[in-house]
Amino acid sequence: MTADIDTFAVNTIRTLAPDVVQKANSGHPGAPMGCAPMAHVLFSKFIQNNPKNPKWINRDRFVLSNGHACALLYVMLHLRGFNVTIDDLKSFRQLDSKCPGHPEANHGVDGIEVSTGPLGQGISNAVGLAIAEAHLAATFNRPGYELINNYTYCILGDGCMQEGVAAEAVSLAGHLQLGKLIALYDDNHIQIDGDTALGFTEDVPKRFEAYGWHVQVLDDGDNDLAGIAAAVEAAKKVTNKPSLIKIRTTIGFGSKNEGEEKVHGAPLGEADIQNVKTKFGFNPENKFFVPEEVREFYANVSKKSEEANAAWDELYQKYSQEHADLAAELNRRQKKELPKNLIESLPTYTPADAPVATRKLSEILLNKVAPILPELVGGSADLTGSNLTRWKTAEDFQHPSTQLGSYAGRYIRFGVREHGMAAIMNGIEAYGALIPFGATFFNFISYASGAVRLSALSKHQALYIMTHDSIGLGEDGPTHQPIETLASVRALPNFLTFRPADGNETSGAYLAALSNRTRPSTIILTRQNLPHLAGTTIENTLKGGYVLQDVEGKADLTIVGTGSEVSLAVDTAALLLKDGVKARVVSLPCWELFEEQSLEYKETVFPAGVPTLSVEAMTTFGWGKYAHASVGIDTFGASAPAPLLFKKFGLVPDAVAEKAKKLVAYYKDTVPENKLRRPF
Amino acid sequence: MTADIDTFAVNTIRTLAPDVVQKANSGHPGAPMGCAPMAHVLFSKFIQNNPKNPKWINRDRFVLSNGHACALLYVMLHLRGFNVTIDDLKSFRQLDSKCPGHPEANHGVDGIEVSTGPLGQGISNAVGLAIAEAHLAATFNRPGYELINNYTYCILGDGCMQEGVAAEAVSLAGHLQLGKLIALYDDNHIQIDGDTALGFTEDVPKRFEAYGWHVQVLDDGDNDLAGIAAAVEAAKKVTNKPSLIKIRTTIGFGSKNEGEEKVHGAPLGEADIQNVKTKFGFNPENKFFVPEEVREFYANVSKKSEEANAAWDELYQKYSQEHADLAAELNRRQKKELPKNLIESLPTYTPADAPVATRKLSEILLNKVAPILPELVGGSADLTGSNLTRWKTAEDFQHPSTQLGSYAGRYIRFGVREHGMAAIMNGIEAYGALIPFGATFFNFISYASGAVRLSALSKHQALYIMTHDSIGLGEDGPTHQPIETLASVRALPNFLTFRPADGNETSGAYLAALSNRTRPSTIILTRQNLPHLAGTTIENTLKGGYVLQDVEGKADLTIVGTGSEVSLAVDTAALLLKDGVKARVVSLPCWELFEEQSLEYKETVFPAGVPTLSVEAMTTFGWGKYAHASVGIDTFGASAPAPLLFKKFGLVPDAVAEKAKKLVAYYKDTVPENKLRRPF
Ligand SMILES: [Ca+2]
Ligand SMILES: [Ca+2]
Repeated sequence: MTADIDTFAVNTIRTLAPDVVQKANSGHPGAPMGCAPMAHVLFSKFIQNNPKNPKWINRDRFVLSNGHACALLYVMLHLRGFNVTIDDLKSFRQLDSKCPGHPEANHGVDGIEVSTGPLGQGISNAVGLAIAEAHLAATFNRPGYELINNYTYCILGDGCMQEGVAAEAVSLAGHLQLGKLIALYDDNHIQIDGDTALGFTEDVPKRFEAYGWHVQVLDDGDNDLAGIAAAVEAAKKVTNKPSLIKIRTTIGFGSKNEGEEKVHGAPLGEADIQNVKTKFGFNPENKFFVPEEVREFYANVSKKSEEANAAWDELYQKYSQEHADLAAELNRRQKKELPKNLIESLPTYTPADAPVATRKLSEILLNKVAPILPELVGGSADLTGSNLTRWKTAEDFQHPSTQLGSYAGRYIRFGVREHGMAAIMNGIEAYGALIPFGATFFNFISYASGAVRLSALSKHQALYIMTHDSIGLGEDGPTHQPIETLASVRALPNFLTFRPADGNETSGAYLAALSNRTRPSTIILTRQNLPHLAGTTIENTLKGGYVLQDVEGKADLTIVGTGSEVSLAVDTAALLLKDGVKARVVSLPCWELFEEQSLEYKETVFPAGVPTLSVEAMTTFGWGKYAHASVGIDTFGASAPAPLLFKKFGLVPDAVAEKAKKLVAYYKDTVPENKLRRPF
Repeated sequence: MTADIDTFAVNTIRTLAPDVVQKANSGHPGAPMGCAPMAHVLFSKFIQNNPKNPKWINRDRFVLSNGHACALLYVMLHLRGFNVTIDDLKSFRQLDSKCPGHPEANHGVDGIEVSTGPLGQGISNAVGLAIAEAHLAATFNRPGYELINNYTYCILGDGCMQEGVAAEAVSLAGHLQLGKLIALYDDNHIQIDGDTALGFTEDVPKRFEAYGWHVQVLDDGDNDLAGIAAAVEAAKKVTNKPSLIKIRTTIGFGSKNEGEEKVHGAPLGEADIQNVKTKFGFNPENKFFVPEEVREFYANVSKKSEEANAAWDELYQKYSQEHADLAAELNRRQKKELPKNLIESLPTYTPADAPVATRKLSEILLNKVAPILPELVGGSADLTGSNLTRWKTAEDFQHPSTQLGSYAGRYIRFGVREHGMAAIMNGIEAYGALIPFGATFFNFISYASGAVRLSALSKHQALYIMTHDSIGLGEDGPTHQPIETLASVRALPNFLTFRPADGNETSGAYLAALSNRTRPSTIILTRQNLPHLAGTTIENTLKGGYVLQDVEGKADLTIVGTGSEVSLAVDTAALLLKDGVKARVVSLPCWELFEEQSLEYKETVFPAGVPTLSVEAMTTFGWGKYAHASVGIDTFGASAPAPLLFKKFGLVPDAVAEKAKKLVAYYKDTVPENKLRRPF
């Protein structure tokens, strides 16, 4: 590699990226131009990934945390020969393009590991990617077979640096001593409001040192390619700390407005683009131009990655012979096949079994499932003893020097870092061969919702185990009691929400969540004990909703509940029967799966002509979809022992029965709307 | 003050707090026992607040950020003579108690400034309280009249230290050089999962120094009362930096399990409580015992605060004469009266006015309103140029040494810190005499939802100005396009959500939001231009929903929309009329205010017998409440120019008209359900 070709390549990036943004007439040219040198160094000297086998498990991962700079990422992937053509670059930000306005994982472009743009997520995903690498290396590597040893590289900007989610994740990364995580901080002194002096004057290197990171500072990120390369080399040599390289750059380097906010979020304009091209010795008339030398240079880089991949394949062949069981296991996981004995391991219950909290049922299940599902890794945001997510044989995921666990451990002590936890889960899942889970009180999924949303958008199979699901948590009070929370997650696309009623439904919820490989799930669990109900089964749960208890003859109403309110519905039905009111009981643990059933099936659950009453110890918001009237809580909760709260909020059999009678009376002479049949 | 009485008082706290938790049979005794010394020092030597006038504006503010330790706070307020009786202490965590499981602002106990428990919020609120103090001091103080000069004290624990929201807020606090903010970090090495070594090993003092804080470290927080007092004194002397005092303590000090996680979240048990009392020289049989000397000692402390308040009153009397206008202004604000000329300052529009984006209409309004509403303070999470929240005459809130503004400035550069911004807003509002606002893209309110929820729970009038409200933001794509977001905020209790359709509705939304003094609001605004519609008025908007456009004779359907989809509904109605289908158009900018109207009024908006079609460019979740069928987006969005996206998702007149016809056909022979009349 000569200095000339490097500069030539950098200048190619600096002229190509603005073309991409200009053609779209929308986007962010400044950061791509400023980050071109560091991106070039990473993609030409360091990142080993193979366009011909983009899912190679030991590829180096690259995350562009400042996702708005994605013209840069698309350009780099194009240059390295990934499936981004010049035409794709020309379709940037256009309808049905592979190159949307911010990078999206699982959206058709190889080499995009995670979705970024929402600031702070990418660097946190990178922590997850590095955790996954460390864990899989410890799990699968054997003497002479360093199968897994890739690096995770990340570029991030000032915005990511300011986000709390990033602070949470990088603090944990420091604790975990993730030596193969290398982050390049694009320090350009500019954010959208203007100079970072307006609101971001902390000493970033010192902060990262405080987190336990290895930190280097580079003054001339616009030109000093050798310095960048040397810093990355030095970072690789520090094996027990993640590395931050702070690199001073000029946003929009080359533009007549370089160094100013103007170049951040709008196209440069044709005149300035011509100026840029001229300045870098390019023909200003050429658009989307890649010099042949540069194309060849990058093709050679990719060829080296291809060779590395081939060498790895050879190693893996030998490994498959010497460690057939491990190879089979890794193959299974990469194919996203669940262990064959998973289903039989799921606990089942009968009404004769003693009442148990669903969080406890989850713990019982994890104790059975975790040992046979080694791809399951995760932990709690410092609520292990409350979430009950740690199985008996679990080892902590910790740097071995701490003597608190090892990298082969699968239980992650996330700390009180809910948002970081969720973003890290996304990164772990993006790596492959792992199913991440995270836990906290259900109410605090709201702390993490920025990342939960990206689990859904990016199709990451992340499992959110959320306990203390309602006022049933009792004395901790309204600051900890979810009300709007369930509606929030139900409204999120591509996300499964489970609120199981008892042991069988808990097993069913886990089976569904583990089987859905492109959808995140939340399993929402009680603090308090619940009885095991007659009629619950794993199979029923997989349908999302079903008739738990029918009546003889014509029903007066259907009572539908979820979680702890299903047994309340059963008790209410018994009470009503004494008064001659016949109530069917429906359990609806997962709306999303229920929606996917046939209309025919759904109408057996909510038969036409029978009014439906919903009962759920939280907001009634959204129940209009299924219910003609709803019992719930549309205010905040309160602090008291749980049984008193259920009474206070009218979630006890006599109060619900009262409402049920009103519903029946209301529909005495009129036919209730069939909620399942809609005009379109 | 003698050493003896201090130790005696500390031991009183250490024996009283466990009684409170034990009686409740629920709660957290460990932190109150460990923090007793620092709490005693603060409440006896530093915090000036007057139980007889708890809303004294210049009182020192105290925030217990580790809110689970609230037995401590209730005990301290009791000792200082606030309205927490021994009986109140005995009712801790019981139904309808003034002393819920975590401290709640505006819940009946004076001296509780903000709601804490959700970790990281309190310290972030404290930053807001300190911003408010700095701003009001700069605004109202005059030579010889240092009216506003209180301190904000905060105790926080390891959990708060790990939360991203706190990281965001304390970074900004350092930048803003908030010298009157003093935080005491209860460094007890224990969190719920066990030793902090499990996941929290960063160098906290170094991190805070990196943020620009003044940092002190104390080794013996269990005994060294003089050291704590000296550190607080030293912190007060550093006037251009917030101060952190890291204090090593023993959780559950005095318990046989002191220093262990066991004492964190469960009552000690009677035996251990007796052991504790014996150890501290108390009669183990006495419960809820406060020695007379200690009671007297604290009464004297409060007496001194009372005298300080009286002296302040005297000063204020003189100030009222010399600076009558300023005093009148401060009085008005404290009474939560809006300026009389507010309403007339609100812009109004006619359909003849050119189409404008509602974010731009918001900017126009802020330019008129901000100058006459000096209590309005706030800013954007680094999206000023997109949110359009900075009025022309605004000055930045900055430390004067930066030469970027002054503490009298009202525009806050929050940085890319959405969660911190919202928590800071809560703190500013809690101070009094200010109405805080914050802005970002609507999609990123999800980053802040932990704090937004507490705005609602604590009745803080916080104003969330959220732009780029839908797929209408276009090219930035699905990572930035809200889908589930509106349902999430609509489901939140005590929260007003406005999605105005044009200029008059934007003015109405602001008027409602500014007039509701105990409810937070969000005003959700478009990136793209919208026409001004015939029939929109401020008055109509205040009703939450209204008939924008009626038909002659019997209507075939009602089309209800919000925001940008109201003009879509109007266009659809026009298209339908060509085919002889008569569609009424309803605008529903605020569901919550609409719900508060009389049934009679509501039935004029959604008349019985007419089917309703909702149109909103986001999730249909929740619309079952009003609509018989819904047009919306129940998947994630996409990246493309906005007009193409509206077309792609069927949110254009011809596609909606198609759906409308299906709705009309569906209800040709049946009566649609009256959604407003319910059985209960
Ligand atoms: Ca920047
Ligand atoms: Ca602690």
